[in-house]
Amino acid sequence: MENVIDAARSGSGHPSIEEVARREGLNPRFVMAGIAAGTIVIPCSNASGRANPCGVGRGLTVKVNANIGSSADMESIDSELSKLDTAVRHGADTVMDLSTGPRWREILGRISQASPVPLGTVPLYQVFGEVLEGGGEAGDVEPDAMFSAVEDHCRLGVDFLTLHCGVTRRAVELLKQQGRKLGIVSRGGALMAEWMAARRAENPFYERFGDLIDILRRYDATFSLGDGLRPGCLADASDRAQIEELVTLGELQQRSLASGVQVMIEGPGHVPMNQIEHNIRLQKTLCGGAPFYVLGPIVTDIAPGYDHITSAIGGAMAAWFGADFLCYVTPAEHLRLPDVEDVRVGTVAARIAAHAADVARGSTGARAMDDAMAAARASFDWERQFELAIDPEKACTERRKAMPSDTEVCSMCGRLCAVKTSRRALEPEPGGR
Amino acid sequence: MENVIDAARSGSGHPSIEEVARREGLNPRFVMAGIAAGTIVIPCSNASGRANPCGVGRGLTVKVNANIGSSADMESIDSELSKLDTAVRHGADTVMDLSTGPRWREILGRISQASPVPLGTVPLYQVFGEVLEGGGEAGDVEPDAMFSAVEDHCRLGVDFLTLHCGVTRRAVELLKQQGRKLGIVSRGGALMAEWMAARRAENPFYERFGDLIDILRRYDATFSLGDGLRPGCLADASDRAQIEELVTLGELQQRSLASGVQVMIEGPGHVPMNQIEHNIRLQKTLCGGAPFYVLGPIVTDIAPGYDHITSAIGGAMAAWFGADFLCYVTPAEHLRLPDVEDVRVGTVAARIAAHAADVARGSTGARAMDDAMAAARASFDWERQFELAIDPEKACTERRKAMPSDTEVCSMCGRLCAVKTSRRALEPEPGGR
Repeated sequence: MENVIDAARSGSGHPSIEEVARREGLNPRFVMAGIAAGTIVIPCSNASGRANPCGVGRGLTVKVNANIGSSADMESIDSELSKLDTAVRHGADTVMDLSTGPRWREILGRISQASPVPLGTVPLYQVFGEVLEGGGEAGDVEPDAMFSAVEDHCRLGVDFLTLHCGVTRRAVELLKQQGRKLGIVSRGGALMAEWMAARRAENPFYERFGDLIDILRRYDATFSLGDGLRPGCLADASDRAQIEELVTLGELQQRSLASGVQVMIEGPGHVPMNQIEHNIRLQKTLCGGAPFYVLGPIVTDIAPGYDHITSAIGGAMAAWFGADFLCYVTPAEHLRLPDVEDVRVGTVAARIAAHAADVARGSTGARAMDDAMAAARASFDWERQFELAIDPEKACTERRKAMPSDTEVCSMCGRLCAVKTSRRALEPEPGGR
Repeated sequence: MENVIDAARSGSGHPSIEEVARREGLNPRFVMAGIAAGTIVIPCSNASGRANPCGVGRGLTVKVNANIGSSADMESIDSELSKLDTAVRHGADTVMDLSTGPRWREILGRISQASPVPLGTVPLYQVFGEVLEGGGEAGDVEPDAMFSAVEDHCRLGVDFLTLHCGVTRRAVELLKQQGRKLGIVSRGGALMAEWMAARRAENPFYERFGDLIDILRRYDATFSLGDGLRPGCLADASDRAQIEELVTLGELQQRSLASGVQVMIEGPGHVPMNQIEHNIRLQKTLCGGAPFYVLGPIVTDIAPGYDHITSAIGGAMAAWFGADFLCYVTPAEHLRLPDVEDVRVGTVAARIAAHAADVARGSTGARAMDDAMAAARASFDWERQFELAIDPEKACTERRKAMPSDTEVCSMCGRLCAVKTSRRALEPEPGGR
């Protein structure tokens, strides 16, 4: 079968394009035009065949990714499969497996088999993880091993790959000059920078970007050009290193697109609210309108335990200003590896942000969901309210914790229910005006 | 002692003004000028004497209110005092007691005695509550009883009073003409509208606004002009009824200020993200720059169980665009009366929104908190991170749920900790540039 991007360009069509157009309620021609121009991607490797492909980009609804995966300290396949299931049930459009422990291959294989939604990974973790676990140093990794890992992941059916191609010598030098508060907070970015320092060499993913294009094109996989130098605190946001990397990602986006490989761009990070709009607009202009995949942004550093909320604020704003794809952040962020409950809460929070932005952007069908909820509230139809809720089980459980004597209303106002009073107040006055 | 507003105008000063200036790190003259002009209020009744007065308005940090109070279905003084304590401990700057049950006076009296922070109420609840409980109808309430209730609350030491003065005949008529999905969702607004329909009369709080001014001035209490016609769903946002009410509130703000009574304006409600900015800017122009006290805004209707998040998104944006005071929303919103845990989560979520906006607005001292957290993260100083966290206990508990073998890092990345890798990567290269 033709690659998605070739099929979009030739107009011959592709099952994933048809399916995405159907889900979005759009004409397949619109989706094809976006893919051809690089403003839309459909991450669907020819080695996977997911039940639920998803489109990301301009004119589509905002999508949500959930990160799962174990670290060496806590590895359990069952737990990761349970996180996958939880994320998908709560509306994650894609999942990334970020496992770094010794059993990563087994875990990734099982997740790849089980995932109905597009799957992403960061292949660098394993290349470096194995060398470091074996007592070696970052500089011991051979460049060819990095490219082999990319191919390895593609073979396992990964649909989109985070590759830190923009962590160049110049960008790292700018970062050092400037003196960041928190240095490099991307695992992949930091590992690549350590390798570059040890070898005194340029980033192989940048120097040999054509080799990456060849591999991804074979599997019809999608680039997610990583933001290895994203800010890890408000103080580091929008600095020269971050923007230099973005300039490079724009350059690579153009090359990738020209070579017929789909590409999206990853973005920050920790960003104060007043810097979100220009970060998004700058990405769009520098990177040819490519889909923007943001991690957060987290709008304050002081809320560990609540970073699903700090990132819901930033994510909603980012998506309203044009970001296309929100990577969730869980309450465990900055504290520990998320568990299944964190995955649930993180997914729901990111879905809320995505939906709020869809409403603000006027995405097809978005506001209809809110209007249906308003109608259910007006008619005291609680079962319908639960059905329409972003997390039906949660809504139902919370209500039942404290039921009022009049079961039609809720215990907030009890007998003074405003909606009931309003009904009486707004009845036409007999003989009224 | 002189009223706050008189003291600000005469320049003679007032202990609350001194205290607010000290807390905000501002010159008392700046605060006095704001109070005199009506862009700042300090709700502090001469019948209360709170330990922690707070200023609300232009040039000050964003403040957070927590609503507590029981309904007839569940009344417990201990539980309400525990909510008060929880809200204040987690950073609520003010508290409103919205109790509506038969024991409201006892509860309000105890809360008023106990509260270190300014206290607000909605006196209409009790006037109507008592008549309705007694088998009467809304129309049975005598206008004088409404004014007596206001004086009654002032006497109990209430610092700011929500009074639905803008629910006029014309505004309600506009609402009926237009046909809202959710009618009137403010309890006070709906009760007043029901009374007006039953009596075929104008709102007494509008018609006799001068009487309200006289009462509040005696106690140096502050008007919180209620948004009785706020939208209860996205579909009803920014409609003619809402804006007509706001026009009236602007008229009353001017009268109140001219008479030497402090005044703030309440705002929506359920508002899609793309309507927040103009709602805030319109309030500021229509109401002489008076402090804006927003409930939410909630940016989607479909997330019952998570409305602390939908309102953190809306609240953060509103405050960034100029709102001064955020009323928290808890996870129980739309489902039931909040319990102590809801109060905790709701307060923290609103504080996050307020702080994120303070950072974006450049409020004095706000970003320093984030920078201190970044420094604690960079040095792996976990105890300091907990200290600096918006909810230290939560951050500490979450981290300890899954400790890594290397206790310096966290279990998210384990041995692949980006911050540690980054340190090595960014060391000066021997003989390097």
